[in-house]
Amino acid sequence: MSEIRENFTTYIQNLQNKICSALENVDGKQTFREDPWERDGGGGGRTRVIEKGDVFEKGGVNISTVHGELPDPIKNHFNVKEGWFWAGGLSLVIHPLSPMVPTVHANFRYFELYEDENMQSRTDGWFGGGADLTPYYLWDDDAKHFHSVLKDACDKHGEDLYPAFKKQCDEYFYNSHRGEARGVGGLFFDYLRPDDKRSLHQWQQFTEDAGDAFIEAYLPIVKRRMDEPFDENQKYWQEIRRGRYVEFNLIHDRGTLFGLKTNGRIESIFMSLPPTVRWDYDFQPAAGSREEAVLNILKNPKEWV
Amino acid sequence: MSEIRENFTTYIQNLQNKICSALENVDGKQTFREDPWERDGGGGGRTRVIEKGDVFEKGGVNISTVHGELPDPIKNHFNVKEGWFWAGGLSLVIHPLSPMVPTVHANFRYFELYEDENMQSRTDGWFGGGADLTPYYLWDDDAKHFHSVLKDACDKHGEDLYPAFKKQCDEYFYNSHRGEARGVGGLFFDYLRPDDKRSLHQWQQFTEDAGDAFIEAYLPIVKRRMDEPFDENQKYWQEIRRGRYVEFNLIHDRGTLFGLKTNGRIESIFMSLPPTVRWDYDFQPAAGSREEAVLNILKNPKEWV
Repeated sequence: MSEIRENFTTYIQNLQNKICSALENVDGKQTFREDPWERDGGGGGRTRVIEKGDVFEKGGVNISTVHGELPDPIKNHFNVKEGWFWAGGLSLVIHPLSPMVPTVHANFRYFELYEDENMQSRTDGWFGGGADLTPYYLWDDDAKHFHSVLKDACDKHGEDLYPAFKKQCDEYFYNSHRGEARGVGGLFFDYLRPDDKRSLHQWQQFTEDAGDAFIEAYLPIVKRRMDEPFDENQKYWQEIRRGRYVEFNLIHDRGTLFGLKTNGRIESIFMSLPPTVRWDYDFQPAAGSREEAVLNILKNPKEWV
Repeated sequence: MSEIRENFTTYIQNLQNKICSALENVDGKQTFREDPWERDGGGGGRTRVIEKGDVFEKGGVNISTVHGELPDPIKNHFNVKEGWFWAGGLSLVIHPLSPMVPTVHANFRYFELYEDENMQSRTDGWFGGGADLTPYYLWDDDAKHFHSVLKDACDKHGEDLYPAFKKQCDEYFYNSHRGEARGVGGLFFDYLRPDDKRSLHQWQQFTEDAGDAFIEAYLPIVKRRMDEPFDENQKYWQEIRRGRYVEFNLIHDRGTLFGLKTNGRIESIFMSLPPTVRWDYDFQPAAGSREEAVLNILKNPKEWV
């Protein structure tokens, strides 16, 4: 087994443990339950879900390492007639109970392609991932904190990375049918292959540093907002906005659609969907309201650091 | 203006009035509010929505007649370099408050293609539509009634129609990623063009008869189930199942995806989305429960008449 694969597998296993512990400590009521699963065709995963907590209404922190023959949609995508793959990653989505605490998504993954079934002759390999924040009510300091922790992780590997990956995040997590961003962004990167600046090993270091930054990027925001009071109208607004989250994931998200096309494990894929959601006809926040202020930010993504 | 277009426009305007009145009479509390809208590029519509009623938690009964240059995705679909179209139809989705009353969807539409911008030289024209029922708790009599009213409307135009369109409905309203039908079916038909059995005018008669059958197919079911008692666990189940409705509409429904790709009016398209929805991780109904009985039917679509 390739060293990168082996090391990255250990890395995501440890990261899953660290993130779940940190979230459980904050929640104080619920713990994650684990569903191990195996994939027909090779590999499997460890899905961990927390539900109906005091702080986290629903959240999933999943890891999987799967391998086998390339599914047809990927063969077509890469324009190859035959091929084998290995893919390993951690994926998380956390939906807090309080509308004052933002939803967060993060993902860190590695993908390898081979010419042979025994995965000895690697023809390609790349890292991908990112993290992004979706507030329902916005304190500028929260967005600044989230971005600045991620920027620090990027800057260790070159000051060209944060601006590029921040921009890709704004472009990717975009509900084009609404003309608004899903949230206030963060990082998005994909197809990180060896180039004239960085080796695959250096991209691995970068991806793992970004993963390691997640807890510090998100948890301080949770801690300073989880005791903010909120009323039922604010919860209502959160549920309306969660509808936009569903729209993005089911209409636009490549990861979700890829999972569906390749017979991924549905319940692990859909752990990203919020627990309670509303769609009202033509819901509009009141002029000058805090809700409208968030919407204006989502329509005009800005620089936070 | 072509006679078919003109007649069908009048038909859907009248049908919208009739259906809205019939639903308002049953609800007794709320009435439909109307949003007229115009389309950049030609035409417009009349969206009518009812919300937070005693019987109907959310429902839309929309008509639109739009025309202009073919949007690029349709040009590609029909493999033409230039072309103009006219499309008119009625589309409705009703989400009752009570989980004992099924959700219903129906749609009746006509499409014309032209070689010229003035829509004088028609090169093609076809009817499409259907109606389907999505119960959360199932009384066999309800499914039988719905199908038998629609079958009667079909049979007037030939006994080959109901079996063909019933089958297409089961195939179309199918959540392939879940391995289950969206509901207990009904009719689905599309691309009804003149053939050796029926003229375009006869397909129009058929489509209008199917549209006229809607009220009789659905409202008696509403009336006999709206006073059934229900508890919060049954409401919970309805909201879980509404999640499947969202999944179908955003992942699989051609009409929704077509609307998004062609810059359709978002709020009119998304009036189909349920008012309150839940996604729990890996929700499973109890063995032997009424909920499980519905699920078993959805996994094995059956003949109702």
